[in-house]
Amino acid sequence: MATFSCPVTSFSSIRCSYGPNSSGNHGDYRVNVNVNGNASTRPFKHHALVNEMALQSPASLANLQFLENGHISEEKIRQRIPTKKQLVDPYRRGLIVERGVGYRQTVVVRSYEVGADKTASLESLFNLFQETALNHVWMSGLLSNGFGATHGMMRNNLIWVVSRMHVEVDHYPIWGEVIELDTWVGASGKNGMRRDWIIRSQATGITYARATSTWVMMNVQTRRLSKMPDEVRGEISPWFIEKQAIKEAVPEKIVKLDDKAKYVNSDLKPKRSDLDMNHHVNNVKYVNWMLETIPDKFLECNQLSSIILEYRRECGGSDLVQSLCEPDEDEILFTNGVVQQNLLKNNVNTLTYGYTHLLQTKGGTKNEEIVRGRTRWKPKI
Amino acid sequence: MATFSCPVTSFSSIRCSYGPNSSGNHGDYRVNVNVNGNASTRPFKHHALVNEMALQSPASLANLQFLENGHISEEKIRQRIPTKKQLVDPYRRGLIVERGVGYRQTVVVRSYEVGADKTASLESLFNLFQETALNHVWMSGLLSNGFGATHGMMRNNLIWVVSRMHVEVDHYPIWGEVIELDTWVGASGKNGMRRDWIIRSQATGITYARATSTWVMMNVQTRRLSKMPDEVRGEISPWFIEKQAIKEAVPEKIVKLDDKAKYVNSDLKPKRSDLDMNHHVNNVKYVNWMLETIPDKFLECNQLSSIILEYRRECGGSDLVQSLCEPDEDEILFTNGVVQQNLLKNNVNTLTYGYTHLLQTKGGTKNEEIVRGRTRWKPKI
Repeated sequence: MATFSCPVTSFSSIRCSYGPNSSGNHGDYRVNVNVNGNASTRPFKHHALVNEMALQSPASLANLQFLENGHISEEKIRQRIPTKKQLVDPYRRGLIVERGVGYRQTVVVRSYEVGADKTASLESLFNLFQETALNHVWMSGLLSNGFGATHGMMRNNLIWVVSRMHVEVDHYPIWGEVIELDTWVGASGKNGMRRDWIIRSQATGITYARATSTWVMMNVQTRRLSKMPDEVRGEISPWFIEKQAIKEAVPEKIVKLDDKAKYVNSDLKPKRSDLDMNHHVNNVKYVNWMLETIPDKFLECNQLSSIILEYRRECGGSDLVQSLCEPDEDEILFTNGVVQQNLLKNNVNTLTYGYTHLLQTKGGTKNEEIVRGRTRWKPKI
Repeated sequence: MATFSCPVTSFSSIRCSYGPNSSGNHGDYRVNVNVNGNASTRPFKHHALVNEMALQSPASLANLQFLENGHISEEKIRQRIPTKKQLVDPYRRGLIVERGVGYRQTVVVRSYEVGADKTASLESLFNLFQETALNHVWMSGLLSNGFGATHGMMRNNLIWVVSRMHVEVDHYPIWGEVIELDTWVGASGKNGMRRDWIIRSQATGITYARATSTWVMMNVQTRRLSKMPDEVRGEISPWFIEKQAIKEAVPEKIVKLDDKAKYVNSDLKPKRSDLDMNHHVNNVKYVNWMLETIPDKFLECNQLSSIILEYRRECGGSDLVQSLCEPDEDEILFTNGVVQQNLLKNNVNTLTYGYTHLLQTKGGTKNEEIVRGRTRWKPKI
């Protein structure tokens, strides 16, 4: 998954300009976005991410699997992407639920998905969100090749890009534990899509984590955000349901940090292994860069309970990245063990602590925002 | 998986000294190893890795799941580690094969396990080797908690540590592909264990990759290598079979690089997320550090066909690491596209190219070897 985004709170406020990019920069595009009443022309860059809802109109297996010369594509044989809706996938341990439009997958937490404390890392949860989202589309019988778009989207040169992600974690699954992930999609304004997840213990049914995300469409040539064409709406809207994993009355506004932030980690360089199928830094890497900027002393005695990410720009393999973070004022309560213990005795369930985050490219003349973040933490028991 | 090792070619040549560590350093231990006729006293450090064959004598579910106060351990309920041999695991899609002693797991290659070219990364293959090895022990009904040792090993304060790994890759699985991993164990000299793997296409049965590894036992307190106690041999030897995934008549000797190596990547710092359950850098991270030192230009047009790793010392979270690599002499043939194309036409199947690798800690006075490596590459088609 690569990522890009604007801080979209309601997609009905997006006004797109379709003219050529005045900068002539292939990787840049501009779009008028009306966010919270403030119209602006904002530059975006193409984000590899997520032609995630790659819905295509049904086609016969034969049509898909045979190339013009009559040879079967080796990749298609090996991948076996369904061309019809499939209710059960024994290999993925997945099934269609929610009256035929939701997806559930049973997963065992693997030995390499847990951290030093034997609990699944936040990175692993993000990976499983991506995986189940793609498998949902896989099961729908509508997935085109790879992270590709629907037939309607492909005809319009559109891909999905993520603009916002909000994850709440009550309990972290442990190594070897069997968990169930449910995922489904819904409308988000006129031109966007919401995708939600719930992670539950398979043994007890207890909810471990919830997540919601918003997605918009981008023209892959002009690098501009796009309205959702009726043709595409017709493909994907039958899958929309109203249910929400996290109800957000007024989404939290994330302030932009500047160079005065308390903790700064500069000169972060993407590695080859950080790049995904779209040749951009996978957005899960962003989360790691953010968390690694928080002091070890804090991380040792606290665990993340929520994270909100606002994606603004992709990160390429050659970008130099800077990670900034600023703790909320009362950090001392959480780094001083004694005070923390006293607080724990009084009010362990409501005690949380926050950090504000910013990842930006470190350019010659100006820095560009990649993602803003907000994390909340609670003491480890 | 954390890792440690000595270049053991035959475990019958190990002579262990059990006296206290003269250095007084908790993380160091010494052992006399007779390798290829050369006796030496070599310092080792404890390696988190792999109390991998955590075989314990059978015990009733009740005994394992109830603590002294009568309460069931929450971790045990969530993990549900079998206390008896299990022939099928529907959640892991695993089954016991090879007349009751081998393990086979069917796996779907996930979206986050592939690189920019949509094929599984070498890191992902290593992760699956670790996962299936642990699940093999899981199925045996003999696994103690976590990466822990067998009952006999625990009574003797022993853990398994990996000393050598050799992987041959003919084809890389692609995103969404269903693959089968077979793994089994065998004797390696008097005091060691061999673990092998084969990866096959589930659709065609074609072998994609083969791997073999050797393991020895270490006393967790003295940090010294240990002979295998008869008690432990009695537990694990019923699982040994002769079959070998890779036949190695004379294992390739890996020379030690020095500072004159052509490519050097210094100041590598482990991140929090690189640490595994044993609070050491996971050995999969070593592989990435090695490969990232090879020039991008080479990696773009070649793919790894084999890797041999000789583990020598663990890497802790606070170590500074240096990665060195030296290409074989005829590198020009592979970085010059024209020459390469001409070679391809003539002899595409036998054309490979090699690098020698070294990872070492970068200390104040002297550097210590972590792992030596040898990789072979062939042109991407």
